[in-house]
Amino acid sequence: MKIGIVGAGQVGGTLGVGFAKAGHHVFFGSRDPQTAEMQALLARAGSTAKAESVANAVQFADVVVVALPWPATQSVVQSLDLHGKVVLDCTNPLLPDFSGLEPGTSGGERVADWAAGATVVKVFNTTGFNNMADPAYGGKPAFMPYCGDDAAAKQTAAQLATDLGFEAVDLGSLSHAHLLEAWAMTWIWLAIQGGLGRDFAFQLVRR
Amino acid sequence: MKIGIVGAGQVGGTLGVGFAKAGHHVFFGSRDPQTAEMQALLARAGSTAKAESVANAVQFADVVVVALPWPATQSVVQSLDLHGKVVLDCTNPLLPDFSGLEPGTSGGERVADWAAGATVVKVFNTTGFNNMADPAYGGKPAFMPYCGDDAAAKQTAAQLATDLGFEAVDLGSLSHAHLLEAWAMTWIWLAIQGGLGRDFAFQLVRR
Repeated sequence: MKIGIVGAGQVGGTLGVGFAKAGHHVFFGSRDPQTAEMQALLARAGSTAKAESVANAVQFADVVVVALPWPATQSVVQSLDLHGKVVLDCTNPLLPDFSGLEPGTSGGERVADWAAGATVVKVFNTTGFNNMADPAYGGKPAFMPYCGDDAAAKQTAAQLATDLGFEAVDLGSLSHAHLLEAWAMTWIWLAIQGGLGRDFAFQLVRR
Repeated sequence: MKIGIVGAGQVGGTLGVGFAKAGHHVFFGSRDPQTAEMQALLARAGSTAKAESVANAVQFADVVVVALPWPATQSVVQSLDLHGKVVLDCTNPLLPDFSGLEPGTSGGERVADWAAGATVVKVFNTTGFNNMADPAYGGKPAFMPYCGDDAAAKQTAAQLATDLGFEAVDLGSLSHAHLLEAWAMTWIWLAIQGGLGRDFAFQLVRR
């Protein structure tokens, strides 16, 4: 797949490196592709990754990963031409002090409103970037739920989550984005206020 | 502990049996303690369990488990004298067709408003009654989050969850009840629409 990364921070950077190592073509969107940080990211990702302007990263891609801080999400998403793209929404509508989620409509549904012409799947929002780099605990994959309204786009999200080593689990329609955002808030709260740190995850276990 | 069960259905019945087997005194509230169903429940629970009127079950108890169907919760809770009790809210504010959660204020916070004079902890709402009967998967405990605003009441909830075999995890204040209700909706959706059935759970795993 050709994957554009919008928001090449810890989450977007880790996802891009993982997708590139899985053999996908990754375009990291950047206002300045020459920074030392971006060059270090490209070195980690290997030869199937490139740094581009954000507009080019989106244009060259079939799948666009939105991994922006919430306060930047609306303006950046609305500034991009996302028609025909599969958009993976990895954001969380956190309050500025990370103490909770913004009330009202889920972030995933708002991103879908802002991403005109795109097909949005909510995924890669429920756990920390460290788990995206290594989702295995005790040799078993961590849980990665996803939701959306388009079966093909969801299959793309599931494949990419599986490529990283997660157990990808379909959680239904995009109207369930609020459930995934609650999972994210649980993880964030436990990591910080709960004192667990980043090295924990959730697994779905069966009898 | 002396524990009253309000709503002796599958969840309340299973919890009461588990608490009785752990050595607690359990009072199952019932409109008709002589039914065959209640007698069967008492036989499962053993000699530390009794069936009482709902008002007596609450009066005799220090800890009151509210495990009612959501449509009955407000009227029953408001009809009881819960002053000074620790109330464990195991309900979920499901829409009548189980397709989602009621919007707005969390069920846990609404129960706290209705339970005048009580200290409310949200717990035992995030998984199925079958997991309450046997929370171990592969020899490891399933995750049981709880939240509330009173440290002593939360410790009671944590102890009871541990007694059943769960890993009890503090998820902060009662304002997080909406997170626990999202976990519940995730479990319910996966069990029914997601086709997983009841024999699955979530575990918190650490490196």
